Amino acid sequence: MTENKKDNRYDQGIEIMKGMMGKNGDKIAEELQQLHPDIAHLVIAGYADIFGRSGLEKKERAIVILTALIIQGATDQLYAHTYTALNMGLTPNEILEIVIQCTAYIGFPRSLSALKVIQEVIKENGLEFSKLP
Amino acid sequence: MTENKKDNRYDQGIEIMKGMMGKNGDKIAEELQQLHPDIAHLVIAGYADIFGRSGLEKKERAIVILTALIIQGATDQLYAHTYTALNMGLTPNEILEIVIQCTAYIGFPRSLSALKVIQEVIKENGLEFSKLP
Amino acid sequence: MTENKKDNRYDQGIEIMKGMMGKNGDKIAEELQQLHPDIAHLVIAGYADIFGRSGLEKKERAIVILTALIIQGATDQLYAHTYTALNMGLTPNEILEIVIQCTAYIGFPRSLSALKVIQEVIKENGLEFSKLP
Amino acid sequence: MTENKKDNRYDQGIEIMKGMMGKNGDKIAEELQQLHPDIAHLVIAGYADIFGRSGLEKKERAIVILTALIIQGATDQLYAHTYTALNMGLTPNEILEIVIQCTAYIGFPRSLSALKVIQEVIKENGLEFSKLP
Amino acid sequence: MTENKKDNRYDQGIEIMKGMMGKNGDKIAEELQQLHPDIAHLVIAGYADIFGRSGLEKKERAIVILTALIIQGATDQLYAHTYTALNMGLTPNEILEIVIQCTAYIGFPRSLSALKVIQEVIKENGLEFSKLP
Amino acid sequence: MTENKKDNRYDQGIEIMKGMMGKNGDKIAEELQQLHPDIAHLVIAGYADIFGRSGLEKKERAIVILTALIIQGATDQLYAHTYTALNMGLTPNEILEIVIQCTAYIGFPRSLSALKVIQEVIKENGLEFSKLP
Repeated sequence: MTENKKDNRYDQGIEIMKGMMGKNGDKIAEELQQLHPDIAHLVIAGYADIFGRSGLEKKERAIVILTALIIQGATDQLYAHTYTALNMGLTPNEILEIVIQCTAYIGFPRSLSALKVIQEVIKENGLEFSKLP
Repeated sequence: MTENKKDNRYDQGIEIMKGMMGKNGDKIAEELQQLHPDIAHLVIAGYADIFGRSGLEKKERAIVILTALIIQGATDQLYAHTYTALNMGLTPNEILEIVIQCTAYIGFPRSLSALKVIQEVIKENGLEFSKLP
Repeated sequence: MTENKKDNRYDQGIEIMKGMMGKNGDKIAEELQQLHPDIAHLVIAGYADIFGRSGLEKKERAIVILTALIIQGATDQLYAHTYTALNMGLTPNEILEIVIQCTAYIGFPRSLSALKVIQEVIKENGLEFSKLP
Repeated sequence: MTENKKDNRYDQGIEIMKGMMGKNGDKIAEELQQLHPDIAHLVIAGYADIFGRSGLEKKERAIVILTALIIQGATDQLYAHTYTALNMGLTPNEILEIVIQCTAYIGFPRSLSALKVIQEVIKENGLEFSKLP
Repeated sequence: MTENKKDNRYDQGIEIMKGMMGKNGDKIAEELQQLHPDIAHLVIAGYADIFGRSGLEKKERAIVILTALIIQGATDQLYAHTYTALNMGLTPNEILEIVIQCTAYIGFPRSLSALKVIQEVIKENGLEFSKLP
Repeated sequence: MTENKKDNRYDQGIEIMKGMMGKNGDKIAEELQQLHPDIAHLVIAGYADIFGRSGLEKKERAIVILTALIIQGATDQLYAHTYTALNMGLTPNEILEIVIQCTAYIGFPRSLSALKVIQEVIKENGLEFSKLP
């Protein structure tokens, strides 16, 4: 019984991850299972509880996620979630704009480190920053 | 000449601050001048260069600013900028939603500290979180 | 149905909070509800999922919690959770020992800030650090 | 004279490091000497003053150390000190439990980054997380 | 014997603290003793080992200390150590200059929070920032 | 017109970067342009506004920069800016001294991570720490 309830939040979380991360959703769920089923359940059910809420539009939620990772300097996750941000509707130049706004809070070095990771992902997806304002 | 150029970015910054912060814009500019004219110029001209850019909608920029302050635990500025966020078009419940999303990145204690400050400002402005989903 | 499942994790979380925090458990649950029912549910159900796990002894879990708050400099929560730590079986001198060990990771200033808060709570509870080794 | 006193704390520190780190103790002392004798002395005598104190059991001290490194995101040291934690008596599943508890304070991304490093060290030592509760 | 050695580093540390902090040295040593003799010994002997080293000029060491506290946002210690910085030879405008340089690494909000604390201490000591470049 | 004013701060920034970074100045300006012209302009004009100020001697400013990067754990930039610090007049042993002083604020692990990066750059430049006090 408890088990079924758990699975319910887990299954919802999987759907939400796929909706956000597109092609990467299953791969990341699989990686979490490889770490340990308990951490996979905690994180994926957390997606149901947190990322799956209404109250922000999809693109707005992507802005919160990307800003959080840039401000924290979470380079590993920034790599994975720049694609998520693109998949949730942010354009490369909107992402650049978020990084530039973040310089007001983390200064230059950490903004530049974030932008290097982001640029790499944008190129890997065949996209680029527009150079004209 | 150099002086005029400086004043130009400063004057633009003042306009952008007022547009973002509403009634608080002049007060904060005055406080910055009281600290020191050089830091006032640096910050306010920075508003022209960073906060005054196009590329994000007003409300989207407010989401970046608020997320950055919550993630950093910048309580002092969060107090001032929750009003800014309301002034830039975020509703109390959208702000709550940003805090809840941030728990995925900073955990419970720092999210709750942020929410206490935010709730205080929301009440001071005669607003409240809606309790019904 | 969904509601019932939710309440189940919430009710478990309330029990776990009371077990950990003693007399403060109900007060903190009430404060969370005052902030917003959604954040109260997220945090308290999180207690069921995280704090309520087996795998560490009660006192060992208290060491993780206290260390985390000291390292983060989460002063507000440190105030509340020093009592929790005492309630979960740590002695004042074991708490002092944790702070001293933490100086290896955060240096002197933040350790001393933590210790001031901790000492205050210990005194309020009619306890004191033993001065003899 | 001063020299002898210094060597005394240094020698005590070496013994404490070996007791904690097992086979890695001499290697890390050597690496510190390669950096600079002054930093080696400062760190190793610090082991005598801080890590060598009584007041926490060996396994409890290992919990403080591991929690501190996870919360700080100190990936380099986490790699070295996961072995230390195993050597001081923590099981792989107790370490997993510490990481899960830490998600309450640092959220998902940094917990997952820590767990990846930890899992690698656990595998290198021919150990694994138990998957059954 | 061990006791004497300990006292030696402690006594050296007291002298170094007094040299750096002027009138505040004895007061801070007393506060540390009030927290606990063990933490007092650890911190004050640490002054002998770290702050008492040669290799940087007095004013240069003050720059490291002040920069570290500003970057960390260690407001409590910044209050105490702005006086220390003045006592070690930094002028109010050099301190302002350090804060302005730090905006490149921590952005505006945390620089402004630091500057507010610093300005307060400077005023309490009957000093002020020069407004002319 | 606006364009000319912008170029003026940019050109000043380029000169200041070259003065600080020596042979690396042009390379880093080029890398910033490769990221995006807007971020290049923001950072390089920021060099004119912040790094180009008078009020600290060259070597003193280098101490602020290096301390900031060590305290933040900004490894990427520390790699680039250790050379900058040498170019601005700090000796290898003065840099070591800054790291040792920083242990009082960030503890051992992050100081050691910084020192490894710094030692690598010092060796690449055919220099070394002096081992004799």
